[in-house]
Amino acid sequence: MVTLKGDERLDYLLAEKLRIIQSPTVFAFSLDAVLLARFASIPLKRGSIIDLCSGNGVIPLLMSAQTKMPITGVEIQERLYDMAIRNVEYNQLQEQITMVHGDLKDAPSTLGREKHNLVTCNPPYFLSSSREIINPNEHLAIARHEICCTLEDCIRSSSQLLKQGGKAAFVHRPGRLLDLVTLMRKYRLEPKRLRFVYSNQGKEANTVLIEGIKDGAPDIKILSPLYVYDQQGEYTEEVREMLYGREQ
Amino acid sequence: MVTLKGDERLDYLLAEKLRIIQSPTVFAFSLDAVLLARFASIPLKRGSIIDLCSGNGVIPLLMSAQTKMPITGVEIQERLYDMAIRNVEYNQLQEQITMVHGDLKDAPSTLGREKHNLVTCNPPYFLSSSREIINPNEHLAIARHEICCTLEDCIRSSSQLLKQGGKAAFVHRPGRLLDLVTLMRKYRLEPKRLRFVYSNQGKEANTVLIEGIKDGAPDIKILSPLYVYDQQGEYTEEVREMLYGREQ
Repeated sequence: MVTLKGDERLDYLLAEKLRIIQSPTVFAFSLDAVLLARFASIPLKRGSIIDLCSGNGVIPLLMSAQTKMPITGVEIQERLYDMAIRNVEYNQLQEQITMVHGDLKDAPSTLGREKHNLVTCNPPYFLSSSREIINPNEHLAIARHEICCTLEDCIRSSSQLLKQGGKAAFVHRPGRLLDLVTLMRKYRLEPKRLRFVYSNQGKEANTVLIEGIKDGAPDIKILSPLYVYDQQGEYTEEVREMLYGREQ
Repeated sequence: MVTLKGDERLDYLLAEKLRIIQSPTVFAFSLDAVLLARFASIPLKRGSIIDLCSGNGVIPLLMSAQTKMPITGVEIQERLYDMAIRNVEYNQLQEQITMVHGDLKDAPSTLGREKHNLVTCNPPYFLSSSREIINPNEHLAIARHEICCTLEDCIRSSSQLLKQGGKAAFVHRPGRLLDLVTLMRKYRLEPKRLRFVYSNQGKEANTVLIEGIKDGAPDIKILSPLYVYDQQGEYTEEVREMLYGREQ
């Protein structure tokens, strides 16, 4: 049983055979969250995982199907944290996933410094000063704009949480690529894997996925491009598999 | 008439209906030079163009077909400079292309500071200290390894040569991407266009093309990926057109 509040609905995460509470006016996960969960190098055997800017917990839910390791999601908005808690309970993942209601800037002191193996973060994309009109809906505004945290906050906390050799994976807009790599290097997260996402062939990239290793040696790889739609406007096979699982 | 020296041969630049002197033991241009000449934003109406690390002058020759603007190539190796001079003469491009035998570090003082509109540079790819075995052939070694100039030298000189708003375009290996963007920003060349080249679909990128604008505003675009070969192992249409011109 699950309690749905307001305009919440219970959607499917088909590839994982999980369900997830979402709300169009509070928080609904984007394709970018799915891409990040698939892109990150998830530790399979040992280690712990932290997801910052966790929203309704979509990334911990997606990763839970691929590892037995404990996953902690950190979310600053109480309303979203509350959805995430119910998502973990509904899917009976309380043993593996812990949600924390708090500021990611405090995460290293509450969750432990230099202790974790992977940090994922799908941060707010827009500067709070950007000319993009800030959404009057407070929940969406905080999720999308750098109101409660900046990109630098996300990267600094990620680095503080990670052991040497631990990995941090981020998703962002290509326009912030140089900020990403500059800040990652500033906080000892050497960028190692970079993948660009294109909605269609022949277009500019609209999303960047990047993973760094704490104190890693400089040597970046540019992975093959990821296309979201094919020429018929349908999801490509790769994205379909991420969303719906491998066809039997 | 043309004088060929040693094992030199007279090859075709088909798309431009030009011919070029090359030598397997001294210098033969690579696909990367063609990609850079096609990628750079060539000024059509006003301005002057400098090509650093010009080798046998392949990039000035390729660009000459697309602009009336004067192009100056700078090459430090006398043997290659001599090939470039003969290439310019054979193709009767002395009015448009000037070759300079010299060190690119001196180019701003000899060719003028803050004066030019585009600088292209296909620099040596390998660190002189790299574990890649340095080619015992001196000509090839200097063209491929950072013996006579470092990437920082190339980027510093490019910036010094350019007017505000002028553009610098480079080709390099993806492993140097972070050095490229860091050094470009250090020398006021804001990276604006980035394109990755993949030999095949599904592989990692093996080449990066990047263009910056002197004192430009931060805002980078990731262009569509460029594939060199199709699934049959033939050049893709885009690369074929770069090499052989548009089919009539």
